[in-house]
Amino acid sequence: MADVSVLINGYGTIGKRVADAVDAQRDMEVLGVVKTSPDYLARLAVEEYGYPLFVPEDRVERFEDAGIETEGTVEDVVLNAEDYGLDVVVDCTPEGIGARNKETLYEKAGVKAIFQGGEEAEVAEVSFVAQCNYEEALGADYVRCVSCNTTALCRTLGTLKEEFELGRVYVTIVRRAADPHQVKKGPINAIAPNPVTVPSHHGPDVKTVMPDIDITTAAVKVPTTLMHMHVVRVELKEEVTSDDVIDAFEEARRIWVVPHGEGLGSTAELIELGRDLGRKRYDLYEILVWEESINVEDGVLYYMQAVHQEADVVPENVDAIRAMTELEEDPEASMDATDSALGVLNSPPL
Amino acid sequence: MADVSVLINGYGTIGKRVADAVDAQRDMEVLGVVKTSPDYLARLAVEEYGYPLFVPEDRVERFEDAGIETEGTVEDVVLNAEDYGLDVVVDCTPEGIGARNKETLYEKAGVKAIFQGGEEAEVAEVSFVAQCNYEEALGADYVRCVSCNTTALCRTLGTLKEEFELGRVYVTIVRRAADPHQVKKGPINAIAPNPVTVPSHHGPDVKTVMPDIDITTAAVKVPTTLMHMHVVRVELKEEVTSDDVIDAFEEARRIWVVPHGEGLGSTAELIELGRDLGRKRYDLYEILVWEESINVEDGVLYYMQAVHQEADVVPENVDAIRAMTELEEDPEASMDATDSALGVLNSPPL
Repeated sequence: MADVSVLINGYGTIGKRVADAVDAQRDMEVLGVVKTSPDYLARLAVEEYGYPLFVPEDRVERFEDAGIETEGTVEDVVLNAEDYGLDVVVDCTPEGIGARNKETLYEKAGVKAIFQGGEEAEVAEVSFVAQCNYEEALGADYVRCVSCNTTALCRTLGTLKEEFELGRVYVTIVRRAADPHQVKKGPINAIAPNPVTVPSHHGPDVKTVMPDIDITTAAVKVPTTLMHMHVVRVELKEEVTSDDVIDAFEEARRIWVVPHGEGLGSTAELIELGRDLGRKRYDLYEILVWEESINVEDGVLYYMQAVHQEADVVPENVDAIRAMTELEEDPEASMDATDSALGVLNSPPL
Repeated sequence: MADVSVLINGYGTIGKRVADAVDAQRDMEVLGVVKTSPDYLARLAVEEYGYPLFVPEDRVERFEDAGIETEGTVEDVVLNAEDYGLDVVVDCTPEGIGARNKETLYEKAGVKAIFQGGEEAEVAEVSFVAQCNYEEALGADYVRCVSCNTTALCRTLGTLKEEFELGRVYVTIVRRAADPHQVKKGPINAIAPNPVTVPSHHGPDVKTVMPDIDITTAAVKVPTTLMHMHVVRVELKEEVTSDDVIDAFEEARRIWVVPHGEGLGSTAELIELGRDLGRKRYDLYEILVWEESINVEDGVLYYMQAVHQEADVVPENVDAIRAMTELEEDPEASMDATDSALGVLNSPPL
């Protein structure tokens, strides 16, 4: 089968990772990446990684002035998708821009597109987490990979839901305030309700992927950049032990059970593990659940999980490409291919 | 020539990096690493990296209990250095322990050892920065690789000193409070004079490598974990332009001139560059000087440089091994070998 040719529109936190992840697969290739600012990352994309660089029409001059070579404009490549052999756009632009791009570019060109979790669910036919609903995205024109937090909740709650009968779920989300390079965002010394309204939007977002889960969420923002943390409470409708839960997570894909007691007592130390494993950009694609936090008491399961917000959605984007182009109809086969190329593991190598 | 066989005593922030750096060289090999706690990092050393693991006699049982395989004790391997074929110990133990190890182990065994900058200068015959005084370490039994801050100052001031006639130097050192994984250290919301006495010990430490430089330093500690920053003021005894300085730094080894204006406006963004370059553990072995900060006014040169405290001394340890074992007598040849194996660059790939 011919390779699927992918344009990554938006080369920031997610886009640069999706580009590398697509590049690592055997059955797809990076047609190009799109960037709006002529900064160091644009230079790396061209000079270090050799990705063809496309820019918006009104930015061409800026890149010329900066002496960064471009291959053409994003308008040209999308609107002439067939000539370029473009199969799928992965839109990694900031919140809200994706929906605009759909209207002005992708629909006009009749080109398939993937959106990120910052867009409203209505932007796409399917809100997607590979482990939960891969089949729903088969052949779809527009797919939305849900946010890092939603992806994480769908992975672990989806695993539990397959194994056990669940009652109501309640999650407190403790969010990182900004990504590591975002030095202009705060807070730097406060805890902010975010949003202050309870429930937060995260619960309904989980339901876009798993409609029949009874989940409520609340969220606060704290001054850290490394990972999010979820404190989860799940009512159980059957007899389940914490060992049953540990077994379920250990057998599940893309979920790690990690020992707090072995020097992994915080998000900082989990990131250090990512560094020590030699992961590119220290990316932890997996959801990390602290073993010691898994506890069943009075019919209620509790656990805490850490989510690397820059990384966990990256394999999902790759799987979404395979589903919508029907490169692969079997979810497990797609995830196997993605994980093996990216080095995603089902358990930590400890 | 037979490979030089190296034991890394202490497998923490510096030790784990020195082990990987030695492992990457063609002319030396890791005989083993020494760890005191049976944590996740001990497991990785054995299971992921395959380094033989030695532990202190009184810790053997702890590792056995944790089910982590050890090869023997540090006392045994050092005191029977000849039987094991051990040539050099790189001591990466916490401040002060190195000097004790010298007395109780290395001197008794007659084995060469490298110490880190946390030890007093008197622990070794030479305080070492490869670009400044490689030859002084040729054949030495005990060498001290100076601290990350001292290494950084020696690299850039040494470069300037070779090119220009310098007067008095004054540096304000803005120190990171802890390494990224050290979650028990502070401050988390304060700026601390550290030390409160001016001058600080850093100036005298630079003089252990470059005795004839007239340098004074003062230091404060701030709530960040990523890098140190140096704000440098150098009196010039001859006519020098900022372009002359930029040229000198651009031509020098292990120093990068980086553009603040291209999205590299803080230590966080420099670390992001390390991640985007795919550096293992995002390590920046080089000293990064902001191009826009380099300025000459009224006969005084000013510049700001960022120092990745976990990484910049790593290539120095490798060069020190070559010098003291006389594996290589030519400094440039040693540094070429080190840099090529580790991916250390003389300029950023931008």
